[in-house]
Amino acid sequence: MDDEAPTPRGRGLRHRGRVDGGADASASREPSGPIVAPPPPEPGPVNARWRALLAEGGPILADGAMGTMLFSAGLQFGDPPEAWNVSNPEVVRRIHRGYLNAGSRIVMTNTFGGNRLRLRLHGLDTRVSELNRTAAVMLRAEVDSAGGDALVAGDIGPTGEIMAPLGTLAEDEAVDVFAEQAAALIAGGVDLVWIETMSHLSEITAAIRGARRASAGIPIIATMTFDTRGYTMMGVSPEQAARCLIEAGADAIGGNCGNGPDELLPVIAQMHAVAPDAILVAKSNAGMPELVDMRAVYRADPPTMAEAGLAFRAAGARIIGACCGSSPTHLAAMGEALGVAR
Amino acid sequence: MDDEAPTPRGRGLRHRGRVDGGADASASREPSGPIVAPPPPEPGPVNARWRALLAEGGPILADGAMGTMLFSAGLQFGDPPEAWNVSNPEVVRRIHRGYLNAGSRIVMTNTFGGNRLRLRLHGLDTRVSELNRTAAVMLRAEVDSAGGDALVAGDIGPTGEIMAPLGTLAEDEAVDVFAEQAAALIAGGVDLVWIETMSHLSEITAAIRGARRASAGIPIIATMTFDTRGYTMMGVSPEQAARCLIEAGADAIGGNCGNGPDELLPVIAQMHAVAPDAILVAKSNAGMPELVDMRAVYRADPPTMAEAGLAFRAAGARIIGACCGSSPTHLAAMGEALGVAR
Amino acid sequence: MDDEAPTPRGRGLRHRGRVDGGADASASREPSGPIVAPPPPEPGPVNARWRALLAEGGPILADGAMGTMLFSAGLQFGDPPEAWNVSNPEVVRRIHRGYLNAGSRIVMTNTFGGNRLRLRLHGLDTRVSELNRTAAVMLRAEVDSAGGDALVAGDIGPTGEIMAPLGTLAEDEAVDVFAEQAAALIAGGVDLVWIETMSHLSEITAAIRGARRASAGIPIIATMTFDTRGYTMMGVSPEQAARCLIEAGADAIGGNCGNGPDELLPVIAQMHAVAPDAILVAKSNAGMPELVDMRAVYRADPPTMAEAGLAFRAAGARIIGACCGSSPTHLAAMGEALGVAR
Amino acid sequence: MDDEAPTPRGRGLRHRGRVDGGADASASREPSGPIVAPPPPEPGPVNARWRALLAEGGPILADGAMGTMLFSAGLQFGDPPEAWNVSNPEVVRRIHRGYLNAGSRIVMTNTFGGNRLRLRLHGLDTRVSELNRTAAVMLRAEVDSAGGDALVAGDIGPTGEIMAPLGTLAEDEAVDVFAEQAAALIAGGVDLVWIETMSHLSEITAAIRGARRASAGIPIIATMTFDTRGYTMMGVSPEQAARCLIEAGADAIGGNCGNGPDELLPVIAQMHAVAPDAILVAKSNAGMPELVDMRAVYRADPPTMAEAGLAFRAAGARIIGACCGSSPTHLAAMGEALGVAR
Repeated sequence: MDDEAPTPRGRGLRHRGRVDGGADASASREPSGPIVAPPPPEPGPVNARWRALLAEGGPILADGAMGTMLFSAGLQFGDPPEAWNVSNPEVVRRIHRGYLNAGSRIVMTNTFGGNRLRLRLHGLDTRVSELNRTAAVMLRAEVDSAGGDALVAGDIGPTGEIMAPLGTLAEDEAVDVFAEQAAALIAGGVDLVWIETMSHLSEITAAIRGARRASAGIPIIATMTFDTRGYTMMGVSPEQAARCLIEAGADAIGGNCGNGPDELLPVIAQMHAVAPDAILVAKSNAGMPELVDMRAVYRADPPTMAEAGLAFRAAGARIIGACCGSSPTHLAAMGEALGVAR
Repeated sequence: MDDEAPTPRGRGLRHRGRVDGGADASASREPSGPIVAPPPPEPGPVNARWRALLAEGGPILADGAMGTMLFSAGLQFGDPPEAWNVSNPEVVRRIHRGYLNAGSRIVMTNTFGGNRLRLRLHGLDTRVSELNRTAAVMLRAEVDSAGGDALVAGDIGPTGEIMAPLGTLAEDEAVDVFAEQAAALIAGGVDLVWIETMSHLSEITAAIRGARRASAGIPIIATMTFDTRGYTMMGVSPEQAARCLIEAGADAIGGNCGNGPDELLPVIAQMHAVAPDAILVAKSNAGMPELVDMRAVYRADPPTMAEAGLAFRAAGARIIGACCGSSPTHLAAMGEALGVAR
Repeated sequence: MDDEAPTPRGRGLRHRGRVDGGADASASREPSGPIVAPPPPEPGPVNARWRALLAEGGPILADGAMGTMLFSAGLQFGDPPEAWNVSNPEVVRRIHRGYLNAGSRIVMTNTFGGNRLRLRLHGLDTRVSELNRTAAVMLRAEVDSAGGDALVAGDIGPTGEIMAPLGTLAEDEAVDVFAEQAAALIAGGVDLVWIETMSHLSEITAAIRGARRASAGIPIIATMTFDTRGYTMMGVSPEQAARCLIEAGADAIGGNCGNGPDELLPVIAQMHAVAPDAILVAKSNAGMPELVDMRAVYRADPPTMAEAGLAFRAAGARIIGACCGSSPTHLAAMGEALGVAR
Repeated sequence: MDDEAPTPRGRGLRHRGRVDGGADASASREPSGPIVAPPPPEPGPVNARWRALLAEGGPILADGAMGTMLFSAGLQFGDPPEAWNVSNPEVVRRIHRGYLNAGSRIVMTNTFGGNRLRLRLHGLDTRVSELNRTAAVMLRAEVDSAGGDALVAGDIGPTGEIMAPLGTLAEDEAVDVFAEQAAALIAGGVDLVWIETMSHLSEITAAIRGARRASAGIPIIATMTFDTRGYTMMGVSPEQAARCLIEAGADAIGGNCGNGPDELLPVIAQMHAVAPDAILVAKSNAGMPELVDMRAVYRADPPTMAEAGLAFRAAGARIIGACCGSSPTHLAAMGEALGVAR
């Protein structure tokens, strides 16, 4: 089945397989000065849905926390959430459904730690292909069942290792690791790749290169975490991030996770100042994590996040969602405030 | 020891070993129109107990949740329940005993995730034979200790992977995987094989083929989960399921798990409409799972499930049990309502 | 260091290494009639402490639950308790200390599941030697620190698998498995081997043979679990157990775990009737496990267990302790009642 | 980047790589009599920061519990805390930040169980290098972000195994195991190595030899746990420990963990008596662990630990921190009392 020949109920599972070609995503290479965003890619098979979503105009609602929801559902800290795509698929599906019902137009697969270096912590490094592909197919089925107008984003998070020479992870190996995961996600039918929660410029650019190796034309969203007094843990500033990510070929850039909307807001503003044409993304945690018995508690309620959504929009963000501590209720409130409620 | 020569106390452990031959279970191959159920198999060593149970007439009480009970007993989400057959056998036995005391006539082994693909998530893929066989022997011992008139069903659940070409699991491999598990269950002495909670037609037919490879004559129950607006997650309708499962050689078919009796009832009715002679099975969750902190809570109490049991019976189901969220108390109430209380 | 040359503070760690020789433990082979217990072994290096303990006369207080205590201390169900000998030794030591302070004269190592078949569930099957030996050395250090008059018993539990031909475990392999564990315990300096919680005669005799292969003279206590209406799960009666275990060369026999003192009491009485000279062991759970949310709760309080201890003594038991659900407080009360309080 | 060329915000990540040479750390080899501490090492690249910290004079505040904090944050007992350096780095960073904010000048990496023998319990023995190096780089980033005046200590704990001939761990293997971990920590940029919670003299000296093999000049702190009536579990006295550790080349020695300040105080006093010139370290648990349901509870509140800090100082300790049961609040109170509050 494909998009042109849906089943009578329109619930056919779309599977595009690996894609090649598509638009040239190379970006301006100027090392400084206002950054010129890449020209919009030519319409093609890979990014048609992405382009159509952008063409709608207005803010785009992303989704919220997966990990927080999984822990609520019984996942133990330290266990691999990606294994639940196989062992507890009904739980993962229920979470996706929650965000789809809340109006999210970009929903992320449960594959944040699905690269082989993190899966190796659990002896699952030989299953990258299955776990990512299964996650993508499962989310696609939920999107189709919900009407089909949301995009499936293949989630790629950090390896957890430090890049050489400071750490032990060589750049070539990192690119391989990310390419493997991205290829599996793309084989499972994702509409785009979303690289997130990165602290190292060299790691996020390795991830972009890996995704590009898997598909020359797949849209890529790339977001870093600015949780250390306005910088990433490894000392990257919002300006540095914006320049570097656009240069590396990301289709949208921004910040996710971190210490709540108040800290992400200036990050977005700074990115907007140096890259006014870039598609900016804000996916903040539900408030500054407060420590209760050293356990992070996120106190921003849905109205607070709704207000934050408006502030992100005003600061220049186009794609707006939430991260740790959020739930479908938060996202629904944000969609309402942004005028994109379902 | 065998059935003909019980020990003085009648508690002998029956072990039939691997069985071959038996009745021909091939079914009508008509692709449409009212489905003709296969003729009853000839009496033989494999399915004598199954035939005797059917010959009693009236509804047959199956059992209820295993997973819900194990989580109550301390199993962590994400850990393999099958390992408890070896590491905490007294807990598994206690659960079986609860359902036997409640009057269940078909009780399922603790082997839902006992195929090598799911056990591989836990590094246990080399122990399929032992874990399944041990589970079967242990349940047989409990059945014998309880008087011996219940049947031991070898439980087979999905692999968690998606079938090719959409996913990564080739059909031949799937058949191998299920045949391995079925052979171990049969070697452990199960009376029948129960394949459940499936969403993909190609996966459940692979499971039926696997079970048939392990034993040409073993009775097979095959149930799917219709939890996506009346269809399975992969878009299979009750009618499609009924036709396909009967064609594939299942001895009884139906639905299990899902969103509670209210959603399973029309599934049974639709199956009954297209396959009026089929032995239908209804094993619903204890109500629609409600989300409390994203954790599923099942609120149907025993009287509600008892009423549901009567409705399933009226809709054409012959074998009636329960699934997630149920307990021996629910099953006892259902047996009472159905007039098959112990 | 050895017993004859203690350090000034008497806290030297005794390590005897592997022992051979010692008394002939072969027993009467009469298949029926009153069982004649084996003649007391000649005094020798292996069992001198065991013989000295028996020579004191009167009841001997064993210890109580290890697993219950570990779960209270944070062990997750399904995780291997034996790993805590390495990863959380202070917790294991604290539990041993609790029983030593309560007056236990025979304390068991934290190695119930320390055979390679159960450790294989956790990928630890290559560490049988280290985990068992470490457990034994650690308990010896605690016994020495507490004054040194208790015996260290190397705990051996079931493999969890079913013996062939019913199950998959061949007898020769079982003997190997138990011999490996027993050798490691003996290398770590245990005073005796305690095989417990067995349901199958063929498995417990394999364990006795394994222990004997590791040391011809080490004292062996062998206890089964009679939790299925007076029989073991596999249908073994107390009389059968008594005859078989004595024949197999056990130095003391009895029952452990199960459904509380009320069910273990007739077991001891029946063993006493057919083997009046045998050293009998009663190590009951702290009452019949009651189901609260399918989780076992043990309600017998210390006074109840103290009374039970007296009843076991009256029924013929010489070595008296407790099992699941008990704590040092229970054991202290039992010691008080039996007149062997510290 | 390096120390001489910080980034404008002074947040550059320092990475020194593997270091060789430096001062000769060999110590007096006199087997008895008052112990002469080694002469202060020559200033050099390896230990300049250590020497500078000592040169400040006055007490030095170390940090507090890592494990207690991780368990509060959701770590399960029995799971490897070191994996969180990769899978939950934000939690580990938050804990480090807590101690840095409390004024700790020596903060330890989350690598207590990061040797290959303990990581092997979790199938992670091939990742010693990455886990330790990542932990060191991550802590360095936090220290830099907090201003940079704290030292990063690479934490090394016991293997959990018993040294031969009593146990199974050969001395040469132990040295290899510790050298591997120390090399990874040093490659990650630690300022010193802190070996702690040891009970066996042969194991702690193997650890010192291993660290020395990785770097001839790195400062080494070595502390044992005196939790068995004033001795270590293996019967080592404070005097024996002091003599042996100084002889083995440790730069600072003392006690950590155990049964609270009241038991550690005489240990420090005894060490001070035999080694008056040694730099002594006191890192006590937050009180005697009390058993609540067999779970250790530490009841010493911050004022109590502050008072204990003063007592340790009076007894001769120079480096003062806390261990299990403590939190940043305890450390802040101790720093206040010692007059080293931030």
